[in-house]
Amino acid sequence: MTAKKGHRVSFVKSLQAAWHKADSLLCVGLDPDPARLPAGLAQRPDAIFAFCREIIDATAAYVCAFKPQIAYFAAARAEDQLEALIDHIHRHHAGIPVILDAKRGDIGATAEQYAREAFERYGADAVTVNPYMGFDSIEPYLGWGDRGVFLLCRTSNPGGSDLQALQVGNERLFEHVARLAAGSWNRNGQLGLVVGATFPDELARVRTLVGDMPLLVPGIGAQGGDIDASVRAGGRAMVVNSSRAILYASGGDDFAAAAGAAARQTRDALRAALARL
Amino acid sequence: MTAKKGHRVSFVKSLQAAWHKADSLLCVGLDPDPARLPAGLAQRPDAIFAFCREIIDATAAYVCAFKPQIAYFAAARAEDQLEALIDHIHRHHAGIPVILDAKRGDIGATAEQYAREAFERYGADAVTVNPYMGFDSIEPYLGWGDRGVFLLCRTSNPGGSDLQALQVGNERLFEHVARLAAGSWNRNGQLGLVVGATFPDELARVRTLVGDMPLLVPGIGAQGGDIDASVRAGGRAMVVNSSRAILYASGGDDFAAAAGAAARQTRDALRAALARL
Repeated sequence: MTAKKGHRVSFVKSLQAAWHKADSLLCVGLDPDPARLPAGLAQRPDAIFAFCREIIDATAAYVCAFKPQIAYFAAARAEDQLEALIDHIHRHHAGIPVILDAKRGDIGATAEQYAREAFERYGADAVTVNPYMGFDSIEPYLGWGDRGVFLLCRTSNPGGSDLQALQVGNERLFEHVARLAAGSWNRNGQLGLVVGATFPDELARVRTLVGDMPLLVPGIGAQGGDIDASVRAGGRAMVVNSSRAILYASGGDDFAAAAGAAARQTRDALRAALARL
Repeated sequence: MTAKKGHRVSFVKSLQAAWHKADSLLCVGLDPDPARLPAGLAQRPDAIFAFCREIIDATAAYVCAFKPQIAYFAAARAEDQLEALIDHIHRHHAGIPVILDAKRGDIGATAEQYAREAFERYGADAVTVNPYMGFDSIEPYLGWGDRGVFLLCRTSNPGGSDLQALQVGNERLFEHVARLAAGSWNRNGQLGLVVGATFPDELARVRTLVGDMPLLVPGIGAQGGDIDASVRAGGRAMVVNSSRAILYASGGDDFAAAAGAAARQTRDALRAALARL
């Protein structure tokens, strides 16, 4: 299958290059909560863009990826600012992949529209997708052969256990999803998985099931996941996301410098944990 | 819990009133595929709005609900046209609930943003939500006490079986979701379920598990689900969706009249099936 449009290099290769260049597993999540924007920006019509751009510029040296969360932009009627942000990353920080956190999931004809939204409208390099509706709801995204898809597997929230930890035969539902993603669903090596840092035993279990597949790991920082435990469990092929602990490191008008410092610190903690492996 | 904003009457009561007033179970799904817009509209900058508005005005007499599919608007950079459409329904067809088909699913803080998107930005009366991330990903929507939430349970696509039909103890995953939705998750009577018409036995099974909970039933029309079998399986408390078979009934510039005729016919087929119960 060939790319419908765009980049030439596969997403996994782009991610590997970014891991190598930054020597970092850190991904900064862009979840711009309007209620938490610094006072000096809050009145600007493009406040969300301005805030995120400063965060991006201050943290780009320490990251392997950025992950904008589309819900914050959609609730604020700021899709244009999300377009501008992703464009800014691609222009000014070339080589850092953008993972659009959208968690879409729908039947084929509709999934195709969501894939267009993520990959063509926004130009994202990868997107998060919900697996509940099965393979035919994932397949349309694979038509963009140079892009990546991270399927929700074991999410970082407490309620993640409600369905994902259910016993299905001799395994749990999230293990079943991991096996499908590493097996017949992964036709062209475009898939990764979302596995929360808040459940390190389960992260380790997923790692044994999927080989060196990229794992997007939210839950460190504000959600309480432990960096050392996550690295021991998940190894090197991880995109470890932190959002709130970096975005709101100071809460004041020095937010960008504080975010840069927090990102550097987190990158260093991840490096140190890798060195102890 | 009280409504954060807006309407006064609960979603289920609004839906019951709409069922009664229209004497119809039909919901028209608004999935405006740019590739299928009639030639006479395709060049207009507001082509999606204009197309859907004519469909709405031609079919409103025959429906209990409208269901816009947000993916088509998002892929086309047409969120403003979706806002205008929902506003048009509320102004000109008061009493017909709007179910925003978004199938969102995310952790609490982000789910809250998606709820704001659906209920405040768009003013939807109900929204579809994916249950894979568990109750804490659903709970934020329930903060809008007068709105409804349809959880994906047994979806109409073939791949729906990949996870939903898995055996979990002595039931299948979709049955487990149905029991949760009819039980502890349904704190204030705001929940409904999405169950495809393409699996009538499973629709009947869900009905036995959830009493008279509203079911949103896609899959008749273009997807091949049978009206009589669906009504026998699901009974009266259904919102039976048809999208493509109505939107593209003619494909030409007489699309609105053709949609109206197709909607009336489908409503009549649903009435006849109910009369045979």
